[in-house]
Amino acid sequence: MSLGEFDLIGKYFTRAVQRATLGIGDDCALLAPAPGMQLAVSSDMLVEGRHFLSTVAPERLGHKALAVNLSDLAACGAQPLAFTLALALPRADEVFLEGFARGLFALADAHGIELVGGDTTQGPLNICITAMGEVPSAGALLRSGARPGDDLYVSGTVGDARLALEVFRGTASLDAAPFEAVRAAMEQPQPRVALGLALRGLATSAIDVSDGLLGDLGHVLRRSGVGASVEVDAVPRSAVLAAQTPALQRECTLAGGDDYELVFSAAPRDAKRVQAAARSAGVSATRIGRIDAGTALRLVDRDGRPVENRFGSFDHFRT
Amino acid sequence: MSLGEFDLIGKYFTRAVQRATLGIGDDCALLAPAPGMQLAVSSDMLVEGRHFLSTVAPERLGHKALAVNLSDLAACGAQPLAFTLALALPRADEVFLEGFARGLFALADAHGIELVGGDTTQGPLNICITAMGEVPSAGALLRSGARPGDDLYVSGTVGDARLALEVFRGTASLDAAPFEAVRAAMEQPQPRVALGLALRGLATSAIDVSDGLLGDLGHVLRRSGVGASVEVDAVPRSAVLAAQTPALQRECTLAGGDDYELVFSAAPRDAKRVQAAARSAGVSATRIGRIDAGTALRLVDRDGRPVENRFGSFDHFRT
Repeated sequence: MSLGEFDLIGKYFTRAVQRATLGIGDDCALLAPAPGMQLAVSSDMLVEGRHFLSTVAPERLGHKALAVNLSDLAACGAQPLAFTLALALPRADEVFLEGFARGLFALADAHGIELVGGDTTQGPLNICITAMGEVPSAGALLRSGARPGDDLYVSGTVGDARLALEVFRGTASLDAAPFEAVRAAMEQPQPRVALGLALRGLATSAIDVSDGLLGDLGHVLRRSGVGASVEVDAVPRSAVLAAQTPALQRECTLAGGDDYELVFSAAPRDAKRVQAAARSAGVSATRIGRIDAGTALRLVDRDGRPVENRFGSFDHFRT
Repeated sequence: MSLGEFDLIGKYFTRAVQRATLGIGDDCALLAPAPGMQLAVSSDMLVEGRHFLSTVAPERLGHKALAVNLSDLAACGAQPLAFTLALALPRADEVFLEGFARGLFALADAHGIELVGGDTTQGPLNICITAMGEVPSAGALLRSGARPGDDLYVSGTVGDARLALEVFRGTASLDAAPFEAVRAAMEQPQPRVALGLALRGLATSAIDVSDGLLGDLGHVLRRSGVGASVEVDAVPRSAVLAAQTPALQRECTLAGGDDYELVFSAAPRDAKRVQAAARSAGVSATRIGRIDAGTALRLVDRDGRPVENRFGSFDHFRT
């Protein structure tokens, strides 16, 4: 390829840096967290066929690549500051780059953050974004703080992304409009940054649902040394998903993945504050169970009867 | 693949975090730069066939993946703190992972830094490391500070990595021992972190030689708004490279790439301090020319006669 095509990448990803606390360095980006703040860092790599399908629009892919990292910051209660982008592309495809950059920067602008550095190279399509945010020292939401008796919540609804994947796989079918709705959930997840900030000092633990609700909840339970009871019918789902078979609903809500909602725990006395936090963040928070003593993850139905847990977490090295 | 193989990755990359200023977060790594310090961030992506050959030993690849990022921190005068690793692998290959982790952590340990987070996924081999360091506020070495009259230096020797590549390509040949020497230069570059730190407040500009001496110097000249004269025969090279044809020597030293030495400028009055800084860092610093007014990059031979500049910089999207 020509040098001109390499310059093209600079064209799409070079923007003036706005924030006084940031500067494009040269070999490095330079960041200055505010006094008393820790830096929170999240790095995610997206690969075609694993994290997105070849059919995704470049604009949505640009959105999602940043969204999954902002979701990690949200789960820590961090305020996003900046991000780096490392991108391997088979070729300098202008249509792809234009759309990818548009989706990427639209989400970045929505959160007031900037691209401060990175790397581009030729290779199989691979997107690695490292997002940095700040959180008060000792003020991060962690996986390790859940306590027996805490209520367990999830934001928004879960399962649509998995339902969309099942349609792509041909194991479920939807009409055009509901398919587009769940496809958008899969391809353009909304990181719950505002909710993460609102839950500082309120949630006792938090994690984002990237690999499936039960799998991600399992990380919280292990790190906190606790168990949980999850009311499987209380897990919030979209109207589209609620119209599917009960078995598919459970599969999608409990083991779906790619939801990027927050699962978090809070003391029962803070139930009203949790709802106020969710309202302020413009998202719902639904109580789906409670944290238990012990280490068991129990599933129960609406009548309190045990439900068999046959759902594992998503694992990129298990097929 | 089995869940066991995914656990294997955890086995190789999970280590206890040592530094009080760092903590493994959950969804994020948490870092606390010291008061008055900026955070310097560098992100590089390595792809087979572009940044390393399939013949590289996993241990050396682990070293190099971190080294190229530490080299960026060095060029900023930053003290490395921590890094994240995002890794796409076709399969969970234990031999690869064991060697890769060994090389990675040996270099990390040599610099007292730790892996604080990251991501692993299945996909075409791709390694994306984001390294973070700290540098005094307004104390970073930048590309933009070179001034006419400054001396121009390069650390160590340059060109061996390119010579090794030419041997792999079949366009040059070497006996076993010299080949192993230049191959090690290509596969296990030594980031000049100590030199970068010693040059704080001394060098007026700095960059690491990743894409070729002249190409990288060009970035400094553009950012500083200056020109330079480079004495092509003064550019330091190994004894192995010095035994090659004059044309190959110039190609390798001036347009080689993958050297990870520092090119930097300093005022002539600081010549002795530069040499003291280099000694303290255990590496040579050789004067290879001077910064000029204007914007021209001139090459001259040992007698001061102009040498045609037919060397471009390395470009991942130009073949």
